[in-house]
Amino acid sequence: MTITLLTDFGYSDPYAAAMKGVILRINPEAAIVDITHDVTPHNVDEAGFIIESLYKYFPDGTIHVVVVDPGVGSERAILVVQTSNYIFIAPDNGVLKYIFNGEEGFKVYRLKEGSIPSDDISSTFHGRDIFAPLAARISLGEPIDSLCRPFSGFLRGEVKRPVIDRDRIVGQIIYVDRFGTCVTNIEECMLGNRNVKRIEAGLCRIDRMSSKYVDVPKGSPLALIGSSGRVEISINQDSAKERFGLNVGDRVVVTLN
Amino acid sequence: MTITLLTDFGYSDPYAAAMKGVILRINPEAAIVDITHDVTPHNVDEAGFIIESLYKYFPDGTIHVVVVDPGVGSERAILVVQTSNYIFIAPDNGVLKYIFNGEEGFKVYRLKEGSIPSDDISSTFHGRDIFAPLAARISLGEPIDSLCRPFSGFLRGEVKRPVIDRDRIVGQIIYVDRFGTCVTNIEECMLGNRNVKRIEAGLCRIDRMSSKYVDVPKGSPLALIGSSGRVEISINQDSAKERFGLNVGDRVVVTLN
Amino acid sequence: MTITLLTDFGYSDPYAAAMKGVILRINPEAAIVDITHDVTPHNVDEAGFIIESLYKYFPDGTIHVVVVDPGVGSERAILVVQTSNYIFIAPDNGVLKYIFNGEEGFKVYRLKEGSIPSDDISSTFHGRDIFAPLAARISLGEPIDSLCRPFSGFLRGEVKRPVIDRDRIVGQIIYVDRFGTCVTNIEECMLGNRNVKRIEAGLCRIDRMSSKYVDVPKGSPLALIGSSGRVEISINQDSAKERFGLNVGDRVVVTLN
Repeated sequence: MTITLLTDFGYSDPYAAAMKGVILRINPEAAIVDITHDVTPHNVDEAGFIIESLYKYFPDGTIHVVVVDPGVGSERAILVVQTSNYIFIAPDNGVLKYIFNGEEGFKVYRLKEGSIPSDDISSTFHGRDIFAPLAARISLGEPIDSLCRPFSGFLRGEVKRPVIDRDRIVGQIIYVDRFGTCVTNIEECMLGNRNVKRIEAGLCRIDRMSSKYVDVPKGSPLALIGSSGRVEISINQDSAKERFGLNVGDRVVVTLN
Repeated sequence: MTITLLTDFGYSDPYAAAMKGVILRINPEAAIVDITHDVTPHNVDEAGFIIESLYKYFPDGTIHVVVVDPGVGSERAILVVQTSNYIFIAPDNGVLKYIFNGEEGFKVYRLKEGSIPSDDISSTFHGRDIFAPLAARISLGEPIDSLCRPFSGFLRGEVKRPVIDRDRIVGQIIYVDRFGTCVTNIEECMLGNRNVKRIEAGLCRIDRMSSKYVDVPKGSPLALIGSSGRVEISINQDSAKERFGLNVGDRVVVTLN
Repeated sequence: MTITLLTDFGYSDPYAAAMKGVILRINPEAAIVDITHDVTPHNVDEAGFIIESLYKYFPDGTIHVVVVDPGVGSERAILVVQTSNYIFIAPDNGVLKYIFNGEEGFKVYRLKEGSIPSDDISSTFHGRDIFAPLAARISLGEPIDSLCRPFSGFLRGEVKRPVIDRDRIVGQIIYVDRFGTCVTNIEECMLGNRNVKRIEAGLCRIDRMSSKYVDVPKGSPLALIGSSGRVEISINQDSAKERFGLNVGDRVVVTLN
């Protein structure tokens, strides 16, 4: 059984490894995969985009554990969400917004008090003390509804959609990767069969859509449909983020013909 | 069989992966878990704290391999330490000081010359050439005392304990994590049932113990018992290290009522 | 079956994990090992050195997947290379130059169009859409020659060899690690039984070969045969790169007696 971990714990500290120890102690057969532990600390939106962009690539039945949890120790619920193919475990802070706004027929549960013995629970590290044992026990087949109760009061979160006008789409940058590529919230399907006349973001202005990096010379900017099915602004072998000073939240305008 | 790796090899270079290759070549069934490879280069104390903070969360029988080894190639011994539940493999440089000063009834061995064929041993990379094959062979059930001999001359190392007076405890910061939280060597049990009047470290002065981050507003400093059972100085969703310029070794004073 | 991954995708973004998801979806038994994902973006030479330095330490049959691929989306071939003990999957950009110039009796194939259903292939992320499923399918025993065809037009790449004169060897730095140790392309065997009189690189001048770090005091420079069998310039517990401003490509002169 695959269990993935997505956290803001970083790679230097012992926190992510502590979660793995706890999981393996309960289920030695668990196959644990790191999504990343390098989410910007407390950045729920960033983690939300990351889990959305890859959860479907994992085997059916995979348990995805997301611990970006600035409210740790508060009364915020701990959610277990069952979709047709996957289980998600995360704090109730909107980090699963793309699941809630993209999947259909999912069931949301909230961890019942007492399901995890409270003696073992610190107030600062629920990743180790709650999320990890919960994931491990579910991976062993323990029924979700014996650990949790159905919950309808969860935070659904808001996925920012572009504004689509007759001849333009106004969206924003929702993720910037290590290559400096800027992923927008403008999806391929929103372009329809229309011709793209211009893509603008800050100081960057691009006059056509490309289909691959090598369509432009090394060092030249381009816009294309990236691997998550969205419009991306990039520079062939360089950083669009650095060159144009682009960042998450910046406005992106696609003008259509 | 779980084998954990804790090194200062970093994530960019091929060193940690070379250890994994060697282990898997000998024991293809080994479940290898990275603790971290991002220990500050040559920082034995930091690695010592990290292994202490999480070894107990792993399954019984786990082999913990610690390679922070500025003396590589010298005459320093290579230790195999057996506690009631775990095996530790590490250079004899004090990196296991918390084990030696915390566990009881452990046995210490030193690798015998010739147990690992010397043809295969470089003078600069014992992680790959000695520690990895040793861990893999022990994980396959090879008896420790056929590879090693009992050893009493090991470096026990010194765990710095706070000075506990009638109305105050003077300790120090022993670890700072990626969130800028400062972990001290003042343990929960040292506070007894006394009331904490004040926690001071450098420019930081806090007037009570909290029980969780959300007890204070975002951006406010707090002190609490952290996930390793020690007093920690933190800022809710910000860095105490940055705000107050705190670092490992800095003095921390807890005043009791 | 072990599958290793070596990429420039970094540890922050979801790209490496997406590859793992795809692999596990096809072959849930695959044992995936990260070599590193921190190759300098688009640096084919760096990745070439890294894979060379450790592929032999892995179990026979290991599939090594290298995705440093600035030409993604272009017409560059995707190679499957079979040596006597390993399989390599990589873009045809010279990243396997050390294999081609070091191994004997290897067979080179190129992925046939249509072997991976083209519906699933983005133009920017072949790591996820081609390399990962290809590795997974080969790991399940699918014959290479049903997926690929023999290919002789691959880019063999050039391994820069030192110039060896009667009394000196002129090489260069080919890799710098996190410790600031500078690995040269001067191999131990090139020194023969000759006495080394001097090692020079930029401002650094060392008057003898050492056999281990501790041969010199902490903070002193030294040259020795490193763990990859090459002359390395280092400082005991400090960075030769920083101290002497050394970098990949810098000239290194070894004077022999």
